Amino acid sequence: MPLLPFKPLLVAAALALLSVQASAEPAPELRGTGDLGVVIERATGSVALVDTTRREVLRHVEGFGDLSHASVKFTRDARHAFVFGRDGGLTKLDLLTGEIDARIIQSGNSIGGAISQDGRFVAVGNYEPGGVKVFDTQTLELVADVPADYATPDGTTAQAKVVGLVDAPGNRFVFSLFEAGEIWTLDMSGDEPVLDKYRDVGKEPYDALITANGRYYIAGLFGEDGMALLDLWHPENGVQRILPDYGRGEERLPVYKMPHLEGWAMAGDLAFFPAVGRHEVLVADSDDWSLVGRIPVQGQPIFVMSRPDERQVWVTFAHPDNGRVQVIDTQSLEVVETLAPGESILHKEFTPRGEHIWISARDSDQVVVYDTHTFEELARLTAESPSGIFFTHRAHQIGL
Amino acid sequence: MPLLPFKPLLVAAALALLSVQASAEPAPELRGTGDLGVVIERATGSVALVDTTRREVLRHVEGFGDLSHASVKFTRDARHAFVFGRDGGLTKLDLLTGEIDARIIQSGNSIGGAISQDGRFVAVGNYEPGGVKVFDTQTLELVADVPADYATPDGTTAQAKVVGLVDAPGNRFVFSLFEAGEIWTLDMSGDEPVLDKYRDVGKEPYDALITANGRYYIAGLFGEDGMALLDLWHPENGVQRILPDYGRGEERLPVYKMPHLEGWAMAGDLAFFPAVGRHEVLVADSDDWSLVGRIPVQGQPIFVMSRPDERQVWVTFAHPDNGRVQVIDTQSLEVVETLAPGESILHKEFTPRGEHIWISARDSDQVVVYDTHTFEELARLTAESPSGIFFTHRAHQIGL
Repeated sequence: MPLLPFKPLLVAAALALLSVQASAEPAPELRGTGDLGVVIERATGSVALVDTTRREVLRHVEGFGDLSHASVKFTRDARHAFVFGRDGGLTKLDLLTGEIDARIIQSGNSIGGAISQDGRFVAVGNYEPGGVKVFDTQTLELVADVPADYATPDGTTAQAKVVGLVDAPGNRFVFSLFEAGEIWTLDMSGDEPVLDKYRDVGKEPYDALITANGRYYIAGLFGEDGMALLDLWHPENGVQRILPDYGRGEERLPVYKMPHLEGWAMAGDLAFFPAVGRHEVLVADSDDWSLVGRIPVQGQPIFVMSRPDERQVWVTFAHPDNGRVQVIDTQSLEVVETLAPGESILHKEFTPRGEHIWISARDSDQVVVYDTHTFEELARLTAESPSGIFFTHRAHQIGL
Repeated sequence: MPLLPFKPLLVAAALALLSVQASAEPAPELRGTGDLGVVIERATGSVALVDTTRREVLRHVEGFGDLSHASVKFTRDARHAFVFGRDGGLTKLDLLTGEIDARIIQSGNSIGGAISQDGRFVAVGNYEPGGVKVFDTQTLELVADVPADYATPDGTTAQAKVVGLVDAPGNRFVFSLFEAGEIWTLDMSGDEPVLDKYRDVGKEPYDALITANGRYYIAGLFGEDGMALLDLWHPENGVQRILPDYGRGEERLPVYKMPHLEGWAMAGDLAFFPAVGRHEVLVADSDDWSLVGRIPVQGQPIFVMSRPDERQVWVTFAHPDNGRVQVIDTQSLEVVETLAPGESILHKEFTPRGEHIWISARDSDQVVVYDTHTFEELARLTAESPSGIFFTHRAHQIGL
């Protein structure tokens, strides 16, 4: 083979190596991206890139702005992560190079986002100004701008905070409007976006979830008890109310933190979800959404998440009981294990097939990895005030 | 920065580039592996590497031996594919370089395999000699060798063909012994493999499936009607018989091909599965496994697969009706679409979130991609006698 034609390639390779070395970062490694993940480091506006096979932090990447309450979505090739910051920042991180490919400030205050089923669009739900912006995942070009306009009681138009933004099958996004008490769907499958609005769904929806098959969108209500359910297979039926007693109730218990709804665990026909203000995990029959059980736990539950095989449900708690994690057996409906990974447990993520769980202990500056069968501690990784943990298999799941 | 220490790296890079160039293959690309897949090309013993975002064949790789009835499993980092060939070949393919990293002939005749929950082990189910061999996924070193010994009626010991090998939570493998009528579990979670045997499960189990949560292992029986179910959460209950009328029945209809069980579709509480010999898709209530419906279709069904959102079930057929694919709506339980992608439709695979389906038409030498919402044909790719299609998101799912 003649050597000459390859010289430019060699020079390019040399430059690439030098440039990487100069920034004291490891060279991009040819590797699969199926066992990668991102841990949010909220205090420093950075993220830790992690490897779930070796159970290691690969590197820390800075420059994400305000990461309090940040969340992450992955592109369909599982190469890039979109990080949604509280400051309205939308940042595209290359998991292989560890470089920030793009970063825009797209609003004053945002709460999270979603990637469309076909992978082409990334949508962000905004507080200030309230609305949804949709961008091209490749170019970050603005594709649709949907202000969350609603008519206030005094006859003026205002923009509501957008919460509970998720993707749904049919290349749709679904989200809720806090002040307006509305649920909207945004269909991105045609040449033009199509918006549908469901009004009077309940007072102040504050968060939402979508079931794993993308059929039911369920919003929690801050302003009253009960929840709002939209069956996306039958939008003609409108929004229904379920679990009428769910919420703070008449006693108005002190609530340290409203629970997250994204963490709802489904196991067979049962849905496990955090009670508001009470030391209980609630169990509902997902066929008719009737309440069928209450499981006593050691604090106010925040995230209630099912192990992928549905045999266990893992629960994190609000302050002051946030130093422990409890495990519920979904057959006996009893707590079978209590773990104390560290201080201020914020989030957890199962490995895709559920053999391990990663738990962030913010005030211990650690991420702790457990075997979910033996509860043995497998690793303890250093991270700066870790909060959300997100693994790349989410790229392949509806609503995650 | 001093240049000298990096020289060996440059030389290595140069050699790598040259070696790649010499084989006239594209250089390995730094890319995510979440949107890659493998299409088996059975006539040529090769596979096509595909990209589901660009809907393209990236390259063809040869050297896999006999690929009739071949199947594929992916490593937990989604970088490598293990291809199980009919000739007993176990081949490890690097999806990024397109190179075969390792290939061994581990038996005379094998039928498929599985990767353990923790990703450390790859197991192969063998016909000849009958048994299971377990290898280290990194080194392909033999870790366990389990001959499928059973006592024949005449008092001698023989080795049964192993079928329906799957992975299950708890780092277990589960498989069936055809001649013996047994189901075995192999627990790889401890220092030594632990084998448990369930006897007299029914006559001639020929294939099996495991539910998506890894709880129920269900084997189809060739020698009699009905199926054998093992509840892995309650192995103490032993194997139960379900769907007593399932099978060829008393009429002994001509059966062109026993249906595949791996393709069973679950949608909510309903299980959709192929009737044997009849032009029907059967519907069972997965709570008690009672038969609740029969859906007329245009031929003898082979693969019955649920779109990831569970709203549709797609059906392929046996000869002579294998030129068409039908789509069932899981709410109306009616056929809503019939497509004719090409000749001898063998297999199909949904993209992870279900927006597209890829269908192999063996005798048309084509793989056809459809939009599952509009049924529009999106792409038609050339492949050599394509059969099985496997995308990398399977790495993250129990039993796939």
